[in-house]
Amino acid sequence: MTDNVSSIAQPRWARYEAAAVGLPEYWYPVAKLAALRRKGRLAMHFMNLDIVLFAEDDKVYALIDKCPHRGVPLSMGSREFPKTISCEYHGWTFSLESGALVAALTDGPNSPVIGKASVRSLPVEVRCGLVWVWTGQGKPVPVEDDIPAELLADDARAYAHYRIVEGNWRYACENGFDESHGKMLHRTSWWVFFRNVSAWNVTEIKSTDDKVWLYRSQHSVHVRDDYPQLGNWPPKKWWKKLGGRTTVQGPDHMIAVRLPCVLRVKQPGSADWTHYEWYMPIDRNKYLYMTLAVTWRKSLWKRFMYWLRYYTYILPVHHYDFNGQDLSMVRSMSDDPPVRAFRPDVSIFEWRRHLEENARGPGGAPAERIRTVAA
Amino acid sequence: MTDNVSSIAQPRWARYEAAAVGLPEYWYPVAKLAALRRKGRLAMHFMNLDIVLFAEDDKVYALIDKCPHRGVPLSMGSREFPKTISCEYHGWTFSLESGALVAALTDGPNSPVIGKASVRSLPVEVRCGLVWVWTGQGKPVPVEDDIPAELLADDARAYAHYRIVEGNWRYACENGFDESHGKMLHRTSWWVFFRNVSAWNVTEIKSTDDKVWLYRSQHSVHVRDDYPQLGNWPPKKWWKKLGGRTTVQGPDHMIAVRLPCVLRVKQPGSADWTHYEWYMPIDRNKYLYMTLAVTWRKSLWKRFMYWLRYYTYILPVHHYDFNGQDLSMVRSMSDDPPVRAFRPDVSIFEWRRHLEENARGPGGAPAERIRTVAA
Amino acid sequence: MTDNVSSIAQPRWARYEAAAVGLPEYWYPVAKLAALRRKGRLAMHFMNLDIVLFAEDDKVYALIDKCPHRGVPLSMGSREFPKTISCEYHGWTFSLESGALVAALTDGPNSPVIGKASVRSLPVEVRCGLVWVWTGQGKPVPVEDDIPAELLADDARAYAHYRIVEGNWRYACENGFDESHGKMLHRTSWWVFFRNVSAWNVTEIKSTDDKVWLYRSQHSVHVRDDYPQLGNWPPKKWWKKLGGRTTVQGPDHMIAVRLPCVLRVKQPGSADWTHYEWYMPIDRNKYLYMTLAVTWRKSLWKRFMYWLRYYTYILPVHHYDFNGQDLSMVRSMSDDPPVRAFRPDVSIFEWRRHLEENARGPGGAPAERIRTVAA
Repeated sequence: MTDNVSSIAQPRWARYEAAAVGLPEYWYPVAKLAALRRKGRLAMHFMNLDIVLFAEDDKVYALIDKCPHRGVPLSMGSREFPKTISCEYHGWTFSLESGALVAALTDGPNSPVIGKASVRSLPVEVRCGLVWVWTGQGKPVPVEDDIPAELLADDARAYAHYRIVEGNWRYACENGFDESHGKMLHRTSWWVFFRNVSAWNVTEIKSTDDKVWLYRSQHSVHVRDDYPQLGNWPPKKWWKKLGGRTTVQGPDHMIAVRLPCVLRVKQPGSADWTHYEWYMPIDRNKYLYMTLAVTWRKSLWKRFMYWLRYYTYILPVHHYDFNGQDLSMVRSMSDDPPVRAFRPDVSIFEWRRHLEENARGPGGAPAERIRTVAA
Repeated sequence: MTDNVSSIAQPRWARYEAAAVGLPEYWYPVAKLAALRRKGRLAMHFMNLDIVLFAEDDKVYALIDKCPHRGVPLSMGSREFPKTISCEYHGWTFSLESGALVAALTDGPNSPVIGKASVRSLPVEVRCGLVWVWTGQGKPVPVEDDIPAELLADDARAYAHYRIVEGNWRYACENGFDESHGKMLHRTSWWVFFRNVSAWNVTEIKSTDDKVWLYRSQHSVHVRDDYPQLGNWPPKKWWKKLGGRTTVQGPDHMIAVRLPCVLRVKQPGSADWTHYEWYMPIDRNKYLYMTLAVTWRKSLWKRFMYWLRYYTYILPVHHYDFNGQDLSMVRSMSDDPPVRAFRPDVSIFEWRRHLEENARGPGGAPAERIRTVAA
Repeated sequence: MTDNVSSIAQPRWARYEAAAVGLPEYWYPVAKLAALRRKGRLAMHFMNLDIVLFAEDDKVYALIDKCPHRGVPLSMGSREFPKTISCEYHGWTFSLESGALVAALTDGPNSPVIGKASVRSLPVEVRCGLVWVWTGQGKPVPVEDDIPAELLADDARAYAHYRIVEGNWRYACENGFDESHGKMLHRTSWWVFFRNVSAWNVTEIKSTDDKVWLYRSQHSVHVRDDYPQLGNWPPKKWWKKLGGRTTVQGPDHMIAVRLPCVLRVKQPGSADWTHYEWYMPIDRNKYLYMTLAVTWRKSLWKRFMYWLRYYTYILPVHHYDFNGQDLSMVRSMSDDPPVRAFRPDVSIFEWRRHLEENARGPGGAPAERIRTVAA
């Protein structure tokens, strides 16, 4: 396959390469608050850490899920006293708040090991009905810094859906922001059954003034075109002529991405909701895929109509059929790096450069600036 | 997790570390004689060896389960002649007794390879209805040296039960002799439903005069205690007051361990039986777990009553419910070493030191003598 | 086991050792044409390559199954235009014939990447109702060079059957040509139920004048024999006396092998068909096992009778029961090299030497000539 390796100079993305299991210095929405409340505790592998979440009264807690004594998961433990978890093996009892060892039950009340052992606790917050965890080693930023501001509005109504899927989170994130795959991959999804998907666009990648979002700005849209020696593409379908509306196209800001792994797709005007995705690394080959369908409505009736729309249409048709196509591509890429680029990959390369230059955390030698990366 | 690593000096256990897949220079009871007789042969992976056992007439045999010709397992072979096994592939025929090649059937009666090849045979003995195999390279000791003497008594009645379980045999053995886990882990088992399990004890580890057994000698028993800022533990349960008897407690010698991997738990007086466990390494992450429930009774009626008690009570309630809690802990420790110790771990560290100083086989620089290993 | 390692000098087989995943510079019959036609495409792992076959009109094509853009399998793609495959992810469109990129649909008709990328295409031919693929880096030889000439006859009637099985292809091939295993392993198969299988033979390995086939030439056949201190073997079975015919024995050329991995077993005269096997490497531990039962008959009636015989007798009794015994042996050898040889292994060693000296491709320092390899 060496004959296929692109000879064009591709920039070196040192921080991007190093982020195969994620960018730690961020807040991640790892679970629904309601699910944690219902079960009382949730154990998960996340960013190559074993984490256990606890809910008690109005508070949530996050600890590393491993007793420092004999290595048994604390998630197997029992709740002997308020605001503590006791390891099921020997009764080492940790503060949920700080992770400090406050008792070693089977060594009596005055065990000298008290205060000399602890388990790492992770900063944790609740916003938008989700539990946000800080996995970084550094001092956490305010959680609001990592949440799109509009999600914090009073009238926001968000439906979150979680799946654990195969693949590397970076390819998933790049897939979300990728300009051109929708025209080929999604043309067969039910979501665009009545809509025309264009053959190709010319797009420029810009960033918002605050440098938080990177977005696609379209210069031209080619619904169909004639390919030399091959023919017209995509083929006309009579039922698509009815509306004639094109999809995944639109004004600036429609499709945007931000660090660490957030995609936002504003839906066309009348639909009145916005689609978000988080691609949260579990390990090198798995990620936690969260879709968030958000609307802003105050009236009970409108909220009910959105509830109905979400469960009968958005969840099955968008999140499973449409997004399922993305998941199958990311899964099939496994751990192989792409070797050959073309013009529409500018969205991917600009995203990598954005990560390289702007991601929080150590490192950060800026990538070589190459606007036109492909032949 | 580095902040949790104990800064106390832990002794180096060179032989203990080297024994991750067992101590070879011992006899191990790897199967029930009745099961071997019924099936005629048993293939097993044991101590990283592939072994096959055969029974013929009154004798049992053990060979390495791999034909030296093309590597096919001899356990796939057929019994063409008495006291031999013929490899199913080309008919290389080995003496069950010595492992020597006595014929290569498909090369005719005078094959020159006869006498020039062999498969390793393992010393094997039958005692207590069990098949004992010597896996060492050295000259075997008398099998009685590795069997608790009381098991060889004429009136001993032993019920063996085998399971293959996940985890390293050393953690399983340490779990058996561990002083404190019972107070936390087993407090919820049916076995102690009517009994009080103490909160904590002070225990000293001693060895019998012949240095064969290491046992726990209790100095004090604290059934309940008051933990500062937390409260009383364990909580009172009204139905436990009835008997008021404490469990897993008792006079010296009640709980003892001996090399290579034998635990003995004498049951309180009226129960009139003794519980044994063998933790026999299969590989680094699996072990053969054998429980042996033994009584000493001559009368047929008493033997019948013990048979009834074993199958209706001891096997389900002790071996599955109670011991199942141990197995789940050992499994969850996987291959991670414990990093932080506390006072009751003295039983574990004394056991390691005992192994270090007294185990048969090469090596054996004695471990640094540290009586108080934990903060 | 070191005591079992043969002390006899075994030749070094450099090319044989290097061929653990096959000899690339050959044609391999990897699929039935009818199956490919029915499904339109077939994806497979073969010789550690991911390959996809396509059928269109009267032609077949083979490509490496990985888009050079983002690594997605082309077998997930769609057929947008004749004689092309379009990657499902971004519409990169490749010529089935040459593998050249002829369009990048989502970059418009004039994408500059056209002509600058390609996917490797493999030479492919159709003969005997099978699809033959050339996996080598060198210029392909005529496909007829790798097909036994008699298979190309007009009246040849061939039934192919494919299985993916565990084991290394070299052990499978050696098993096929191995002189002695049949006498032990196959004595219990239904295929020889009425026939006497001899105890041992004396065989010489010769090659045809054109050096294409290696075959076994028998000097003597010992149907039964007396083994000192053991007895007669094999035991007499009354129902075998009826015919008295011996099997897997016969005149020269009956059992022959040729590069890269083809076995031919001519059936005794009246049976009027010939059995072929191909052992085609998938990876180090798996191979594609193809049996080919061939007859040469012109009359429709005789062809019908052969069809009947194949599906009611040859396929279940020969290919599954009889050959299934071979497969179970090869599987059980796993990746362990044989360490100890005996006289009948001359067939195996001559085959290795033949491979060493005559296989196409780089390398080829001839092996040390040792005729008598075993004690």
